[in-house]
Amino acid sequence: LACLARQLTPPTGLVTALPVCDGLDLNAPADFVVGGHDLHPVDFREAALGLNERSGMFTARQIEVCSPDLLAWSANVRVAPGSRPEAPRAAIERIQSDLKAFRIAHRLDQIVVVNVASTEPPFELGADHERLSALAAALDRASSPALPASGMYAYAALDLGLPYVNFTPSLGASCSALDELARARGVPYGGKDGKTGETLLKTVLAPAFAARNLRVLSWIGHNILGGGDGRTLNDPANKASKVKSKDGSLAAILGYKPQSLVSIEYVESLDDWKTAWDHIHFEGFLGTKMALQFTWQGCDSMLAAPLVIDLARLALLSQRRGEVGAMAHLACFFKSPTGTAEHDFFKQWAAFEEYARG
Amino acid sequence: LACLARQLTPPTGLVTALPVCDGLDLNAPADFVVGGHDLHPVDFREAALGLNERSGMFTARQIEVCSPDLLAWSANVRVAPGSRPEAPRAAIERIQSDLKAFRIAHRLDQIVVVNVASTEPPFELGADHERLSALAAALDRASSPALPASGMYAYAALDLGLPYVNFTPSLGASCSALDELARARGVPYGGKDGKTGETLLKTVLAPAFAARNLRVLSWIGHNILGGGDGRTLNDPANKASKVKSKDGSLAAILGYKPQSLVSIEYVESLDDWKTAWDHIHFEGFLGTKMALQFTWQGCDSMLAAPLVIDLARLALLSQRRGEVGAMAHLACFFKSPTGTAEHDFFKQWAAFEEYARG
Amino acid sequence: LACLARQLTPPTGLVTALPVCDGLDLNAPADFVVGGHDLHPVDFREAALGLNERSGMFTARQIEVCSPDLLAWSANVRVAPGSRPEAPRAAIERIQSDLKAFRIAHRLDQIVVVNVASTEPPFELGADHERLSALAAALDRASSPALPASGMYAYAALDLGLPYVNFTPSLGASCSALDELARARGVPYGGKDGKTGETLLKTVLAPAFAARNLRVLSWIGHNILGGGDGRTLNDPANKASKVKSKDGSLAAILGYKPQSLVSIEYVESLDDWKTAWDHIHFEGFLGTKMALQFTWQGCDSMLAAPLVIDLARLALLSQRRGEVGAMAHLACFFKSPTGTAEHDFFKQWAAFEEYARG
Amino acid sequence: LACLARQLTPPTGLVTALPVCDGLDLNAPADFVVGGHDLHPVDFREAALGLNERSGMFTARQIEVCSPDLLAWSANVRVAPGSRPEAPRAAIERIQSDLKAFRIAHRLDQIVVVNVASTEPPFELGADHERLSALAAALDRASSPALPASGMYAYAALDLGLPYVNFTPSLGASCSALDELARARGVPYGGKDGKTGETLLKTVLAPAFAARNLRVLSWIGHNILGGGDGRTLNDPANKASKVKSKDGSLAAILGYKPQSLVSIEYVESLDDWKTAWDHIHFEGFLGTKMALQFTWQGCDSMLAAPLVIDLARLALLSQRRGEVGAMAHLACFFKSPTGTAEHDFFKQWAAFEEYARG
Repeated sequence: LACLARQLTPPTGLVTALPVCDGLDLNAPADFVVGGHDLHPVDFREAALGLNERSGMFTARQIEVCSPDLLAWSANVRVAPGSRPEAPRAAIERIQSDLKAFRIAHRLDQIVVVNVASTEPPFELGADHERLSALAAALDRASSPALPASGMYAYAALDLGLPYVNFTPSLGASCSALDELARARGVPYGGKDGKTGETLLKTVLAPAFAARNLRVLSWIGHNILGGGDGRTLNDPANKASKVKSKDGSLAAILGYKPQSLVSIEYVESLDDWKTAWDHIHFEGFLGTKMALQFTWQGCDSMLAAPLVIDLARLALLSQRRGEVGAMAHLACFFKSPTGTAEHDFFKQWAAFEEYARG
Repeated sequence: LACLARQLTPPTGLVTALPVCDGLDLNAPADFVVGGHDLHPVDFREAALGLNERSGMFTARQIEVCSPDLLAWSANVRVAPGSRPEAPRAAIERIQSDLKAFRIAHRLDQIVVVNVASTEPPFELGADHERLSALAAALDRASSPALPASGMYAYAALDLGLPYVNFTPSLGASCSALDELARARGVPYGGKDGKTGETLLKTVLAPAFAARNLRVLSWIGHNILGGGDGRTLNDPANKASKVKSKDGSLAAILGYKPQSLVSIEYVESLDDWKTAWDHIHFEGFLGTKMALQFTWQGCDSMLAAPLVIDLARLALLSQRRGEVGAMAHLACFFKSPTGTAEHDFFKQWAAFEEYARG
Repeated sequence: LACLARQLTPPTGLVTALPVCDGLDLNAPADFVVGGHDLHPVDFREAALGLNERSGMFTARQIEVCSPDLLAWSANVRVAPGSRPEAPRAAIERIQSDLKAFRIAHRLDQIVVVNVASTEPPFELGADHERLSALAAALDRASSPALPASGMYAYAALDLGLPYVNFTPSLGASCSALDELARARGVPYGGKDGKTGETLLKTVLAPAFAARNLRVLSWIGHNILGGGDGRTLNDPANKASKVKSKDGSLAAILGYKPQSLVSIEYVESLDDWKTAWDHIHFEGFLGTKMALQFTWQGCDSMLAAPLVIDLARLALLSQRRGEVGAMAHLACFFKSPTGTAEHDFFKQWAAFEEYARG
Repeated sequence: LACLARQLTPPTGLVTALPVCDGLDLNAPADFVVGGHDLHPVDFREAALGLNERSGMFTARQIEVCSPDLLAWSANVRVAPGSRPEAPRAAIERIQSDLKAFRIAHRLDQIVVVNVASTEPPFELGADHERLSALAAALDRASSPALPASGMYAYAALDLGLPYVNFTPSLGASCSALDELARARGVPYGGKDGKTGETLLKTVLAPAFAARNLRVLSWIGHNILGGGDGRTLNDPANKASKVKSKDGSLAAILGYKPQSLVSIEYVESLDDWKTAWDHIHFEGFLGTKMALQFTWQGCDSMLAAPLVIDLARLALLSQRRGEVGAMAHLACFFKSPTGTAEHDFFKQWAAFEEYARG
């Protein structure tokens, strides 16, 4: 964001910088102030220097020139409530009071809340999550957690009338009760799980197999990655959320369920880089078996960052336009899109183009 | 075709067997009789046995059960005029007289002419190919060839009022004069160069890079294949046509021309199988370079055959519907589509879906 | 074996057909009669026809011509003792009595017992397996199993004075007590776990990294395969033995332990074919990280079969030469070689060449 | 060299840093002074900064700390004689006078001349290159060039009694007349063409196929690379030398010539990185065709640099030991080794180990 605002880089990787978005009244990069909650707040400048040294991200000059922004934004980050035991309502109130303080301190017109925290373990939804009244009552009970951390932030944001985007496979706003809250407060929300690499390719390639009537027999995907994200996903509980999110799109696109497998393994030496190897075995005419393999070598943070900026800009625009509830037109950004069952990237993209062109 | 008519195989690989085509009044496989011209006519049954032995295509049982069709259809194949020196008009007339004899012999309602011959060297178009009158005059001159073999067949077919499909990178009907002929006779035609493997993937993946604003720096594609097609393409003159056809789509989709390379090499041991390795180097946010590689292992004949059947069915339908000229709605089948500049597979597919759904 | 004896195939894939083995007095393929034990005995001819249909192995003609052998050998297969509850001694005696009956029925000079059964779960060795006397005593006790099935066969064979080869990761003869038995009876034995594909490549490539002083940071290997072997290995208990055997060689060759991962997954559509994808991340001069990836597409049975024939021939030769105990010169055939700690394929190969050249 | 002397990096990638070389009396990195000839001399510090920025090589700190060495060594580089028309003898004398001046200026005990210039087009050897006397006479004639630039440097060095190493596919000292010169002057020499990546893997993998009696049907290798080396090799004349050198080893190792292809293509976006994709099609038991593919992603300069240091150290040692003529024990370093026909990497390595262990 700092590099864009200071014009140190072309906007490669930003969907909102494409000509199709020219007619949208989006915020400029310089309009943004960054703040947030983190379990273990870090100095953004130090983090950037570390990524530069270990993974070759950024240039020394970019970090130097953007240092004032990085330092100022680091100062806006507070310790997340989740790091200490607290009643749900108290936690939500603390989040909301931090958001309000942030708005006043920086004289902001709008705030968008984006979840880019580490993946949570899967969270089981129940009757409490169907209606807003039931959820509100559950949050008032101190006993068992009615929502995981990601859900509390979604509640806090939507309840305050702030647009909310969930870039992770965690729950976020993905339940009927929170959808009801968004509609009650008249705010848009979107998610979940940013579609940056292997799953993007899946939802690009699977429609082509379908359009050619080639039968996918098995689709095996192995992901190896290092960095903080890799370390978190190495925990089987967290990995489960991710694998589920990555694996869901195939059957939706193909109309049948081929044998499939998605593995995610932490490989320390790869740092912030990910390599995905996918083996797609398919049957063509007269039962002939053929194969497509691909290897994707991407820098996860550099694929995710511009999409997060895109989503923030698009969510703020949605709010200004008075759009309410799930932003289904943003499906092309997500592995598990909210507000639509469409997984085919090209149908998602056509929907986004239509939205952008008005 | 014989296997489909005898229900020895499900219609995997046939686009026209997809639900989207359910409403189209297409010919059944059993409606077809196969005949043709070949430089060196072969016995289809022997050819099938050879492919089975060398490349594992078909099953012994399929070949045995379909033997009557294979033998009958082999008897319908005549030596192509191209194999002996002949004036253009005489050659065209001989093609036409064979087509007429074929129709009478088998009491056919319609005939569709499909070019599935080996790739010709590139053919330079001139003033003679702009207007039908000029082309007709040029064909009357005996001196230099006004059209390559593929063009003579296109002329012969269209002039007789028969729909024509060019599945190869050769010229076929791709010039203004022949388009004029098609319109004058009121027939549809389509081409060129069936999009079966590597180029299909190119036109599937490139739109995704474009939609994510990821800048393709270089796209290198190496194709190795054996079989008859591989042997023909090993001749640099023939290869030139193919490479041009394979390489044209990228710039059309991306809106700029990345460094690109397409090689095709004959590797005898691969028989009818092709392996394509593509290396796509691209730039993401903040100038970060990343890569996608894929390996496609396909059986070329088995990818092409169902599409040829699709195109024959769709061209015959077009004629019955009274559609005239370039069948732009079939762009998704071709590397160098006629009647449209659209190379993005998904935009091509959306156009086909719209046509099929009426 | 039948194809070789009938000269229906060149001896491609047989190490013992290389010029280096010309001076060895090996049995000819026609010298062999095949028999054995199986949990679920199958008709070899039916099995071959199934493999031909599903995986393209063999030709119809090979199966037809070899049918007499296949039928005769199928008749030599009896149900394995493991399939019903039995005291260890009784089981061993039944194996031995079957072996003796087999020798008499076919007037054989020598018998070699080769374990090509499915992989067993890992078996914990204890004090009983250190000395032959202790093992013999344990076998006399009826309670808990002193040896897994593979160990019982090894015991039965060695005790009868028959050479024994373990082509699987199961225990077989790999404990001090059975080594003592082999020496006591004066017979050679070898194993374990045939080195056919991915691990072969590991022990070929790792020495090159070591010789160039390139530091392997991580070596990730994913194996996907179908067929009976794949189905057995899909059971986590069986897979554990295999993964351990596949993963052990790296540290032995490199002298340090890089991060490593070996996965084996059953992918039904692959039938008897295996695809292994390995990603080797390594560090070169000045800390520069580089990568080698390979994809191995092999037909497991066709890689294993000639090595099994090689090992049978070499074990019979060893016995005739009076060699006793672990055949360390056969290390190049195994993932976990017996009688030596050498995993470097080229050092193993040099040792075999030296043996073969005498 | 500067990083090693200043202990800024571990000696990863240096063969001479392996334990097997512990007993060799090699020069320390700090013993070396670098100088040379270049067609277009560059400032080493600027070059390093450019590589760091474009290809992520070195760290900013390494370049900064080593700046004094880089500046001092840059000052030792003079313009190569090849850049202006000159009689052969005059050119050789100028090279020799520069070498002598370099020795005096830096009070050096020994000098080793290493060719790391860009690849020359193939040079046709004739009768003049068989005997030293004929070559000397040819050099006296002014007319057509008796030797390419690389040969002139080899002549100049050997004639002065300096060891010579050719790290390129150019001619260097590879002719009988220059071998005679080396023997006459009592100096060792070695080459040619450093074996750093794809060819290293070829000579590692091919012996394994041979040892398993698997028949290689075709071996296709495509190399894509950027940087200065890539640009030079994009010239077909220069590429010819390289392809020949890369392609020669297979037949030597396998004992037969499979179909093979080596391509080298300049892909600007890759900068100093190279990706090689090799497809090895092979036949196993019963004619079953299988495949191995690998992708090598290496930083060419970082693979070459430590080997150049190794070769300089080993050549200087050879001279001190009084070894004369082709250093056949260094075959493992070269694509086209001098003084031996051995291409099998492991046999080459065994020979080097034997030499190193004395």
